[in-house]
Amino acid sequence: MSPPSLARLPHVVIIGGGFGGLAAARELGRAAVRVTLVDRRNHHLFQPLLYQVATAGLSGPDIAAPIRRVLRRQRNTTVLLAEVASIDPEGKRVVLRDGELTYDHLIVAAGAGNFYFGHDEWAAHAPGLKSIEDALEIRRRVLCAFEAAEREEDPERRRARLTFVVVGGGPTGVELAGALAEIGKHTLARDFRNFDPSDARVVLIEGAPRLLGGMAAELSEAARKGLVDRGVEVRLESRVETIDEHGVVVGGERIVADTVLWAAGVAASPLAGSLGVPLERGRVLVEPDLSIPGHPEVYVIGDMAALKQDGAWLPGVAQVAIQGGRVAARNVLRRLSGATTEPFRYRDKGSMATIGRSAAVAEIGGLKSKGFFAWVVWWLVHIVALIGFRNRVMVMLEWFWAYISWQRSARVIVDRPPALTAGSDDGA
Amino acid sequence: MSPPSLARLPHVVIIGGGFGGLAAARELGRAAVRVTLVDRRNHHLFQPLLYQVATAGLSGPDIAAPIRRVLRRQRNTTVLLAEVASIDPEGKRVVLRDGELTYDHLIVAAGAGNFYFGHDEWAAHAPGLKSIEDALEIRRRVLCAFEAAEREEDPERRRARLTFVVVGGGPTGVELAGALAEIGKHTLARDFRNFDPSDARVVLIEGAPRLLGGMAAELSEAARKGLVDRGVEVRLESRVETIDEHGVVVGGERIVADTVLWAAGVAASPLAGSLGVPLERGRVLVEPDLSIPGHPEVYVIGDMAALKQDGAWLPGVAQVAIQGGRVAARNVLRRLSGATTEPFRYRDKGSMATIGRSAAVAEIGGLKSKGFFAWVVWWLVHIVALIGFRNRVMVMLEWFWAYISWQRSARVIVDRPPALTAGSDDGA
Repeated sequence: MSPPSLARLPHVVIIGGGFGGLAAARELGRAAVRVTLVDRRNHHLFQPLLYQVATAGLSGPDIAAPIRRVLRRQRNTTVLLAEVASIDPEGKRVVLRDGELTYDHLIVAAGAGNFYFGHDEWAAHAPGLKSIEDALEIRRRVLCAFEAAEREEDPERRRARLTFVVVGGGPTGVELAGALAEIGKHTLARDFRNFDPSDARVVLIEGAPRLLGGMAAELSEAARKGLVDRGVEVRLESRVETIDEHGVVVGGERIVADTVLWAAGVAASPLAGSLGVPLERGRVLVEPDLSIPGHPEVYVIGDMAALKQDGAWLPGVAQVAIQGGRVAARNVLRRLSGATTEPFRYRDKGSMATIGRSAAVAEIGGLKSKGFFAWVVWWLVHIVALIGFRNRVMVMLEWFWAYISWQRSARVIVDRPPALTAGSDDGA
Repeated sequence: MSPPSLARLPHVVIIGGGFGGLAAARELGRAAVRVTLVDRRNHHLFQPLLYQVATAGLSGPDIAAPIRRVLRRQRNTTVLLAEVASIDPEGKRVVLRDGELTYDHLIVAAGAGNFYFGHDEWAAHAPGLKSIEDALEIRRRVLCAFEAAEREEDPERRRARLTFVVVGGGPTGVELAGALAEIGKHTLARDFRNFDPSDARVVLIEGAPRLLGGMAAELSEAARKGLVDRGVEVRLESRVETIDEHGVVVGGERIVADTVLWAAGVAASPLAGSLGVPLERGRVLVEPDLSIPGHPEVYVIGDMAALKQDGAWLPGVAQVAIQGGRVAARNVLRRLSGATTEPFRYRDKGSMATIGRSAAVAEIGGLKSKGFFAWVVWWLVHIVALIGFRNRVMVMLEWFWAYISWQRSARVIVDRPPALTAGSDDGA
């Protein structure tokens, strides 16, 4: 039980242990409030490196830290492993699947899931990349595709098994496509007998005229060129019309592929709907101080929030969530002390994406960089940002090992018997 | 495709990429035969360290190596990811779930699964430890039990959530019980608010009068004492009568426990039955040269084989499988060259088990050791035996980190939403 003195303090409930929720909890660590952080996972996930888990470069635990471990020194904070069913702002209640919590102040940071532009039937054929389970499923599909190719006699079917389509040319799509190209060219070289893994075909499909829409045009072009040099087919201004078990149809052309990965769109958590306030493309339209209309004690941050700054919607990136979490936490404390809340102003610290071994693009504070230097910066920033000392060291070592050996350390298919999946059509 | 010259060579099929199958494949690496190794997993698993994955000390990929990577330099060897449905010794065929293989010589090394002494209904309540999936399921149950305890108001129910019963006092059971005790005492200390993780109760149940039946009596006693010192309740000469969702009944007494783990018995792969030869407790009664009666071209090795040496059945340990794999492979070559086969003679290289941090028991070539020295030996032997240079380095570092920090690096619950399991009875 919490010490009795704690029970009398105002209760701040935070939903979600991602970048936003964790930043909010830390900001409240020494405040005279009682904090409860609820998440349906026991771990904080370092999502920017999730594509490495999907492409067998890292193990899941390398990029995950137990939330209660991260917050263990905050004696005013309780971490609860529970799934939130809905929010009742009128009753100031968070309804759990197996209980409920009452709050004085609420910070909602439940993040986003994949969004298939109204084609939910595509989800089965084109998994997205939001959780460790997603990453393991993608890893399973990719590794199984090569395994299935080894057993395939028909050249056309083998071609389909060795074709990988990535939908969406943002950072996640670019990083997935780059890593997939290197798996075929280097990691699996010499491991198969009946085909050459470097024959694998990777297609990256983007609807806009350039990749990495959030970055400067010259970096978009550098990323495109870097991917093409690595053997990736980059298709710009192309829209996916169909995704099914045979592959995709894009611009009227069918690309036959056993493996299609989704990196094109995210939608806010369904919890947004239960707040009873206006939504913008599934996101909650928040006030400038990140609270919701009519409920100044409820804040929505990160991927769940829709807020315009200088005429443009804020992007769904970690920095927006982290900075928003801090502002929401501070606004809780301001209101408790009777002060007015501060408006949220996002400060863009830059963005970056790796293209592959020794190559990345980065844009930091107006400075643009590409190639090896950008890759080193990418590397340093991600290592430093990783939560938990141990993970930092292990990931650094995994990468060092991967760099000198061209190997990927997590080539393990977990879960379903793999030979029996990957669109097998050669009998029971 | 294999080089055409290979196709004319005798075809040796190996079922299973565990210790036995891999040893056989390596022995045949430079021989004038064509080798096909079939496994339903893409990875070789270092089973002696599986309990570390189950207790969140290591990630799955740390102790798994892709089979085709291990054998990539053997140009005469093809690795197939496929599930074997049955064996047809008369037709010299291996029937796969989606195809078939014909062979000239067959080495069956499909290993063992858990055996619940005829109580298959216990499996749902007491998972065993044979695969990475098993280990992740056990990890999930253990971590979820602590999470559920944090939310439990009723002291009696909380007690049940914090009670862990391990059935079976062989090396796996001893190592699991020791690791579980340390998780409560050290790893999770300070991480919870509503209970003290060191209150966790660990009960180890063994039917025989001592633990580690295969080792010298004084080491059994040292292991028992080491576990008791760490807070484990060791119950010898105790037989489990019931395992259900409420825990176990042992000697007429009910132990209420949410988490029960099975380390008591293994049964040979069901493939043994399809060979049409006599079985001994599910295992194939093999000839002294490891072939089966009536089919000198079929060998059965490792956990699947039943063979007596000096009046006692050979144990189901890695060394028996490895040495058996080598002898079976050599006997294939002997028969091809017209020589008579050699009988298998197991040479016991010793056995060991860790009890916990800085403590183990070891018996090597008649030398007995316990405590810190045995632990260092255990550590060195397991590091050296790990397949794949990278895994060795990473596991060494993980252990070094765990040793200095008392932490476990893989505290990540994957798969099912965890709050909703672990015998939750507090509503939908």
